Amino acid sequence: MALMVQKYGGTSVGDPDRIKNVAARIAATRRGGSDVIVVVSAMGQTTDELIALAAQIAADPPKREMDMLLTAGERISMALLAMALHGEGIAAMSLTGSQAGIMTDASHGEAKITDIRGTRVQQGLDEGKVVIVAGFQGVDPESKEITTLGRGGSDATAVALAAAHSADACEIYTDVDGVYTADPRLVPSARKLDEVSFEEMLELSASGAGVLMARSVEFGRRFNVPIHVRSSFHDGEGTWVKEETMEQAIISGIAHDTSEAKVTVHGMPDQPGVAAALFEPLANDGVNVDMIVQNVSSDGHTDISFTVPKDHAERALEVSNRVVAAMGAARADVDRGIGKVSLVGAGMKSHPGVAAKVFRSLADAGINVEMISTSTIRVSCVVRADKVDAAVQALHDEFKPPMIFEEVGA
Amino acid sequence: MALMVQKYGGTSVGDPDRIKNVAARIAATRRGGSDVIVVVSAMGQTTDELIALAAQIAADPPKREMDMLLTAGERISMALLAMALHGEGIAAMSLTGSQAGIMTDASHGEAKITDIRGTRVQQGLDEGKVVIVAGFQGVDPESKEITTLGRGGSDATAVALAAAHSADACEIYTDVDGVYTADPRLVPSARKLDEVSFEEMLELSASGAGVLMARSVEFGRRFNVPIHVRSSFHDGEGTWVKEETMEQAIISGIAHDTSEAKVTVHGMPDQPGVAAALFEPLANDGVNVDMIVQNVSSDGHTDISFTVPKDHAERALEVSNRVVAAMGAARADVDRGIGKVSLVGAGMKSHPGVAAKVFRSLADAGINVEMISTSTIRVSCVVRADKVDAAVQALHDEFKPPMIFEEVGA
Repeated sequence: MALMVQKYGGTSVGDPDRIKNVAARIAATRRGGSDVIVVVSAMGQTTDELIALAAQIAADPPKREMDMLLTAGERISMALLAMALHGEGIAAMSLTGSQAGIMTDASHGEAKITDIRGTRVQQGLDEGKVVIVAGFQGVDPESKEITTLGRGGSDATAVALAAAHSADACEIYTDVDGVYTADPRLVPSARKLDEVSFEEMLELSASGAGVLMARSVEFGRRFNVPIHVRSSFHDGEGTWVKEETMEQAIISGIAHDTSEAKVTVHGMPDQPGVAAALFEPLANDGVNVDMIVQNVSSDGHTDISFTVPKDHAERALEVSNRVVAAMGAARADVDRGIGKVSLVGAGMKSHPGVAAKVFRSLADAGINVEMISTSTIRVSCVVRADKVDAAVQALHDEFKPPMIFEEVGA
Repeated sequence: MALMVQKYGGTSVGDPDRIKNVAARIAATRRGGSDVIVVVSAMGQTTDELIALAAQIAADPPKREMDMLLTAGERISMALLAMALHGEGIAAMSLTGSQAGIMTDASHGEAKITDIRGTRVQQGLDEGKVVIVAGFQGVDPESKEITTLGRGGSDATAVALAAAHSADACEIYTDVDGVYTADPRLVPSARKLDEVSFEEMLELSASGAGVLMARSVEFGRRFNVPIHVRSSFHDGEGTWVKEETMEQAIISGIAHDTSEAKVTVHGMPDQPGVAAALFEPLANDGVNVDMIVQNVSSDGHTDISFTVPKDHAERALEVSNRVVAAMGAARADVDRGIGKVSLVGAGMKSHPGVAAKVFRSLADAGINVEMISTSTIRVSCVVRADKVDAAVQALHDEFKPPMIFEEVGA
């Protein structure tokens, strides 16, 4: 018998009518003969409302208690969904992350899944029940403390459960139709991808494509769980994220990201170990550094620029100022007015000249490139934030993804 | 070091400001040198809102899932209260019923506490923390299923924790000042009792005094935990419920209850076993029978009347109709227009004539008594529902509780 994992986000279960719609869809899958594990997020605005309540109580609430608070959200949605399934005549039971054996490390608010102990889930399936699991939450087996997984945590729960229970596929139901070649709000001609490889999806996710977080894609890749990203509002096919794709595109899509800031340390002495002297303390302070560019100037000094999430910018500047003082550099500053545009495609590996074509397209559109970073299947450029929309449009017009050049399977 | 258990109801934690007020009060107790276990209900209307959500999803939701849903309520309030205590500079941690070792039977929605396994609570206290426990909820150790305790469950949690951890007292904070000699909304001259015995409080609770449920009083009596019922809005003393009271009153108070209905089976054959033939099937169907009166008529037939909670009335009538058919009785009917007035006082035992005085007072007020039931410390009369207020007033005027006749200790 097939086993499907289905994940429904907060919008999909935003009110009682939507919960009933989701129940009808799950019931259809179950009646079709599949076993089903469902992962569910908190209803619509519940998490935001709970965060607002906490903000009225304490300026800097303990993370342990924030996790205790926020995990109430999925508890509500999962119980209501179980009730709706009973209303459909389908046996169902809801389980918290802890009950479903979602084991994590001890990092409240951003815990990592370390293990799945699926006894109660398997027992529910064996009893013929649809098993509904709270997304976004788990338990640290050492301390028995309840944790949350942070951004994209419900998707990660779903893919991890699919891996642990050897599911045939993991369906991520969302409020968009799938993965697009670019954000359709920016590029009206953007097309939905029928399929995309794990490797490409990882680069797209890391470059700002919000539809799937990189951590879920990484789980899927590691345990080879096909992920189907699709709409919860209609039955149409979405995008399959999987190991082998039927058609390999040179360019699969264009992602953009305006959530980062650029920090520059000016006038560092150009000597061995200078980069380590900067990036070691940044890492120790938990600053997530994305792109790094170093320019050597003629007078024996160098400028180092790097990008960080905007909410890490203040901390990054403090660390940089300490390094400036210690190293006798000129100064450090932060630029919050940047954006990043990334072109992703597995075919890029065997197709030289893509990067050059990117720079030419942006230049023709009058867009200045401030930083560049590349991988074997990605080219990313930092530009002014107010030029991001135009840059995405220009690259989409130029490359017309998905740009397919060979068939790799039947 | 003293150990206090404090329980705060839903009104006391109804919004962020009230939660901060409660935190300030707990902090004062903690700074005074006591260890503190806090039991908290869901915020204000949370439980009702969750029930309303469930009603929009399913007509008859599974009780297991209702428990999963409703237990989100205390999870929210306890986490917020822990945050507020941190804001006061007091170390605190919140624990679910399951984490606090509140073991129950498997009856979803009306579970009974069977054991307290207080390892994590004790650990928190040993670490110098205020330990906040979710009221109203527990876990069945056999199935690991989450349960709720039903009406008065948070009070029961508090008294049970106080018993298990040998607390010096259990304070029940509520929106009234304490236990009154009668409902002050009916009797303006009603007085707050300084103290009342477990035995009397049990009778008052069972007779309709809503301030404490009988199950909590029974816990207090069994484990000899003094219970202090007091207001969460000011610092004044409330009512102490305890084993030995300083002053023993003939009459401690007058309770009333309009939540019951009267069922009468007319024309039962007057033969041995007729009462068993009626009340055995009622018990088997889970109908809670309160008062029972049987009158023997002259023609070899008998009428049996009994009272049940109004929401059991329909079921009681169905069972009675089956018995009518089986026994060849005349008919059964339900009367929902009744009320019960009860006079309670430990001194009644050694003070004859109280019942006679009750009947005389009611007769003088023109109130007809339809059923009578007595214990050693209680006299209860069923009257028309619209005469209940007048009956409470008449009895309060007559007996002027607390009516004290002897000193029993220093």
